Amino acid sequence: MEQYFVNQTIERDSFRISDKELYKHLATVLRHKSGDVIYLVDDQNDLYQATIDQVDTENKFVQFNVNKSDKPTTELPIDVTIACSLSKKDKVEWITQKATELGAKRIVFFNSQYSIMHWKANVVEKKMLRLQEIAKNAAQQSKRRMIPEVSYLKDISGLNNSTDELKLIAYEESAKEGETSILAQSLSAQPKSIICAFGPEGGFSAEEVTDLQNNEFVSIGLGPRIMRAETAPMYFLSVLSYNYELNAK
Amino acid sequence: MEQYFVNQTIERDSFRISDKELYKHLATVLRHKSGDVIYLVDDQNDLYQATIDQVDTENKFVQFNVNKSDKPTTELPIDVTIACSLSKKDKVEWITQKATELGAKRIVFFNSQYSIMHWKANVVEKKMLRLQEIAKNAAQQSKRRMIPEVSYLKDISGLNNSTDELKLIAYEESAKEGETSILAQSLSAQPKSIICAFGPEGGFSAEEVTDLQNNEFVSIGLGPRIMRAETAPMYFLSVLSYNYELNAK
Repeated sequence: MEQYFVNQTIERDSFRISDKELYKHLATVLRHKSGDVIYLVDDQNDLYQATIDQVDTENKFVQFNVNKSDKPTTELPIDVTIACSLSKKDKVEWITQKATELGAKRIVFFNSQYSIMHWKANVVEKKMLRLQEIAKNAAQQSKRRMIPEVSYLKDISGLNNSTDELKLIAYEESAKEGETSILAQSLSAQPKSIICAFGPEGGFSAEEVTDLQNNEFVSIGLGPRIMRAETAPMYFLSVLSYNYELNAK
Repeated sequence: MEQYFVNQTIERDSFRISDKELYKHLATVLRHKSGDVIYLVDDQNDLYQATIDQVDTENKFVQFNVNKSDKPTTELPIDVTIACSLSKKDKVEWITQKATELGAKRIVFFNSQYSIMHWKANVVEKKMLRLQEIAKNAAQQSKRRMIPEVSYLKDISGLNNSTDELKLIAYEESAKEGETSILAQSLSAQPKSIICAFGPEGGFSAEEVTDLQNNEFVSIGLGPRIMRAETAPMYFLSVLSYNYELNAK
């Protein structure tokens, strides 16, 4: 069943959508009618089953009867930020979509020494709006209870301001040296929040890694195969889901 | 460092590449010269460090001095087949590339009731050649020791011929019902080979699931979020890598 985010708090048994875009989508594109049932997630991240009471085509709103749902949450029980070096437009968009499906709470893109792309200051806002829209659509499709926040750091050193409990770097050199245990060990310590930084195709520079390590970031290997820049964050998020949501232990 | 697959057995200290395409890539595109070092993987899945002895532009071959490498394998210690319902061309190609990076040994595409695409008999061979080439390139890039085998089943029932020890279905309905433990339990039994079937966006039909279940396939959930058809196999392969290659236990 469809799910949409509304950026208001649902406080009563009835709720009206008059947001132009969502109204158009519901009434004109999908031609919903009285009696149809959808899900709404409000700005408190609460899920409501919403039955259409009235589609008012004159005043352009949809009126719903709403009931708070008791479905279990679809959010990872841990706060995860993935921080990825800038890459080509389609890869940045792809990372945003997939990381949303896989449960990331925040997605940060940063500029680093070997980044394949660099964004000029005047395009950042537009790109962020586009990525935030992709995150919203993916969050709706994957039935998330929140839309991940997408942001941009013009310099990798901005990662040093992270306040996450566990700070990781997915570092190819660690993988090459056969590092295979730090991720699992770190997760078994049950951190409340994690950030993991992923380098560009050309990797981090040695200075970048040293600087992050001096700021509490720990290098981890993600297995013996070389993954493309966009694949490693998906691997990481899948592992987190398995560890926190599926493991039988 | 570059790595290439050669479909011969390397038996001596020297080895000659006269394959037209690879010769052209090495000598013309990358302009390799005597003394340059690359890696070659032969048809026994063995890795060799190969130093160029001679680039013969007249007779169009490259002659190498080769040494068997003692680098640890990059192959998953378990035989994994992912079987995915047909989808759009770019998704099928994407699944092939990513599943190769993530260590799948075999990638099967099958036709199912709700498949978004259907392939006519006369296009299958061409599509398979293209996908096999994508797998080869991704295997080289990710430093695999083998090229995954890509194949096609014109009917999902062909999966019933699988002889893998553990047979799984990633089934959305299982996830919805909150199934969260069978994957981890199944892996802890240390099967030698696994196949996992993934449905199309529209899901498997109930009859398809029943038929697979009657043939020893077990339904598993892959967490509470709805993943797109191409995301679920990546999640699965990432989890296998974590379980077999990274876990500290």
